[in-house]
Amino acid sequence: MKERVIELLKDKKYNAVRKEILELNAVNLADILEELDIENALIFFRMLPKDVAVDVFSYLSNEHQMEIINSITDKEIKHIMDELFFDDMIDVLEEMPANIVKKILKNTKEEERKLINQFLNYPENSAGSIMTIEYVGLKKMMTVKEAMEHIKKTGIEKETIYTCYITDESRKLEGIVSLRKLVTSDETKTLEEIMETNVIYVNTHDDQEEVAHLFKKYDFIALPVVDKEHRLTGIITVDDIMDVIEQENTEDFHKMAAMEPSEIEYLDTNTLTLAKHRIAWLLILMVSATFTGRIIQRFQDVLQSVVILAAFIPMLMDTGGNAGAQSSTLIIRGIALGEIKTKDFFKVILKELRVSSVVGFALAGINFLRIYYLEKIELKVAVTVTGTLFVTIVLAKIVGGILPIIATRFKLDPAIMASPLITTIVDAVALVVYFSLAAWILGI
Amino acid sequence: MKERVIELLKDKKYNAVRKEILELNAVNLADILEELDIENALIFFRMLPKDVAVDVFSYLSNEHQMEIINSITDKEIKHIMDELFFDDMIDVLEEMPANIVKKILKNTKEEERKLINQFLNYPENSAGSIMTIEYVGLKKMMTVKEAMEHIKKTGIEKETIYTCYITDESRKLEGIVSLRKLVTSDETKTLEEIMETNVIYVNTHDDQEEVAHLFKKYDFIALPVVDKEHRLTGIITVDDIMDVIEQENTEDFHKMAAMEPSEIEYLDTNTLTLAKHRIAWLLILMVSATFTGRIIQRFQDVLQSVVILAAFIPMLMDTGGNAGAQSSTLIIRGIALGEIKTKDFFKVILKELRVSSVVGFALAGINFLRIYYLEKIELKVAVTVTGTLFVTIVLAKIVGGILPIIATRFKLDPAIMASPLITTIVDAVALVVYFSLAAWILGI
Repeated sequence: MKERVIELLKDKKYNAVRKEILELNAVNLADILEELDIENALIFFRMLPKDVAVDVFSYLSNEHQMEIINSITDKEIKHIMDELFFDDMIDVLEEMPANIVKKILKNTKEEERKLINQFLNYPENSAGSIMTIEYVGLKKMMTVKEAMEHIKKTGIEKETIYTCYITDESRKLEGIVSLRKLVTSDETKTLEEIMETNVIYVNTHDDQEEVAHLFKKYDFIALPVVDKEHRLTGIITVDDIMDVIEQENTEDFHKMAAMEPSEIEYLDTNTLTLAKHRIAWLLILMVSATFTGRIIQRFQDVLQSVVILAAFIPMLMDTGGNAGAQSSTLIIRGIALGEIKTKDFFKVILKELRVSSVVGFALAGINFLRIYYLEKIELKVAVTVTGTLFVTIVLAKIVGGILPIIATRFKLDPAIMASPLITTIVDAVALVVYFSLAAWILGI
Repeated sequence: MKERVIELLKDKKYNAVRKEILELNAVNLADILEELDIENALIFFRMLPKDVAVDVFSYLSNEHQMEIINSITDKEIKHIMDELFFDDMIDVLEEMPANIVKKILKNTKEEERKLINQFLNYPENSAGSIMTIEYVGLKKMMTVKEAMEHIKKTGIEKETIYTCYITDESRKLEGIVSLRKLVTSDETKTLEEIMETNVIYVNTHDDQEEVAHLFKKYDFIALPVVDKEHRLTGIITVDDIMDVIEQENTEDFHKMAAMEPSEIEYLDTNTLTLAKHRIAWLLILMVSATFTGRIIQRFQDVLQSVVILAAFIPMLMDTGGNAGAQSSTLIIRGIALGEIKTKDFFKVILKELRVSSVVGFALAGINFLRIYYLEKIELKVAVTVTGTLFVTIVLAKIVGGILPIIATRFKLDPAIMASPLITTIVDAVALVVYFSLAAWILGI
């Protein structure tokens, strides 16, 4: 379907395109628009019915939104900004360069401009920065019937009508009532009788990650956001939280691979930005790894007398690094999901001690059989390698298990204690164990 | 609050506990129950009002659910099973040992038992396995008023009433209508006039990951599930999808750290299971790393004549591994989020070539200055190390970038092409480059 519309556009069969447009939803229309060059994108965008155009606009990537804003008239911009949900508008404004923001703001009313500025000032990744103001506000003296009539009149413009918010004259949050409750309640009851007063809410400055935790824990569709005076300032809906969850996960993936996290899609990021995100950590790790090199230098005479020892260095380093990375990943993920807390420190140590003994025993055993019987390596060397392997796996798993917890304890992000850093630490440990053991067993 | 209730229970102040219970929601009550020993947990569970007890039960961990099922009467079990949402009941049954499942099933009606068996047979992680049957079903000839009355009567028992499903006499899905649309539409209109017929749906056997993609893309609250004959068999709601998203992310984290993925929380998994999940990959990687060792063995004479070369092996291996892991993580994550497709293969190569050149140049430069000027390493050796570092970074980033795409092309999970495997491959490459360059530059 997508390909056909693009074909039709290129052939300038605009009437046929108009027909197709009626069949498609906003998400698919946005998909098509993203595939077009700017000229055709603009033609296509202007073919959309006015209200559909706004919806489609909200689903476009920032790059395409910018291109369109740059090419359309002030009047068209004003229409889009008026019709967009408030949180979508803020998202657009946050990503635009200053000159375009000015261009947009000049078309809004004084009062709205003030509100926009307030929203733009919420810290990045705070509840305030992802909330919207289009909620259904009700009063507790209303009857169910009055409430339903109010929703009928204003519901179309709201982000969600499935949870409604009851506030007093000074906008303080008094309770919530779900549309389900309204629909299934007696029409003559007042909201005060049926509303839920034990409301779970967040503050404008709470971190979006905590908000996401609440959504996951309580299976909410929406959550109210209040300011310091407990006045209702907005709501957050579940669809925005799904984006937050993916964004937080992406951040963890990036950090765990020793990169600065980025919200921009890989293919849309330019070379220098990508390089910048990667260099700092690589450099730190590279310099750390040279200390590991020093260890080899220090044991140069051991190595020189039994050169075969060098052949097992990669295997010991890699296996140690991998063993540590497994443990640290499990713990980092467990902390992120709220399953593991700092108080579990000793439980984790004990568990990793047990698991690593089993894993270490199995791997060291197989390794010994292989190098002694198959590769016919001298017994003393085989014992040295096998012993080192076992000790390294146990140490690696304990280090990998506790460093993320220690990081959390010191209010650092546990995700930095992942594979790259663990590997560097474990490498050094493995080599010290290896050469010390070699010097002792081989009597060098 | 939680601590107080637990205190009160231990002091056997049951009346005070009953009072506290009224103030708390099901999620918090479940939290409290999880902290109690089995004896107090049971006392506490039986204090809960009957309908609250069912809700609390659905929020408990499988272990606690099992403990309770084991300790309560058949009649109590029947009540819980009758009142649980169908998908929650299926979740419970899936995790219980066979004897308990039998105990539960013996208390259900023939008809329901058939349905339960059908649900238990959907493949793990399929749409069928996470859907529920409690949806609002309507007919297209109903007026809005009739539909609202129907919802008022049956709505309480439904998982969601915010999207309603219109089916024909043979249960084929004809359209959907949101409660928002119903509430804001003229009461005399028929559903046929206002329903959305261009419905997005999934099949019972679709993978839950695809379902999650649809939710994220279209911002749904619920999605219908149909069978091969296009008959409506259930719905999936957004709260279950949030769990799916976290579960899929956890799976990727685990796979990327070379472990078999697990859905059970770390602290609840026993030692042998944890060990089993880790050993297989460690073993494969350990054996692969011995090939890297062979490379060192083959170049033993180069190493013996310039032993200082050994000191740079850890730094070269680690930096190469880290550089490759960065790229593979970005690509794996991009593929998981649907941002990178197999057709982007050459774009990725080009991008990684550019990025790695910048990163490689910076790192190699700094490395040269450090080892030649600070560590006073011989020029030829410094050049060998620096050259290897540059080539390794470029190769590592290209390998890390394309392997996940190649895996996708061959219908393998790209997540296996992560740090551990990339590191092993890059290590071998780095050493071959290193010793070849050394032999050539140093003329050995």
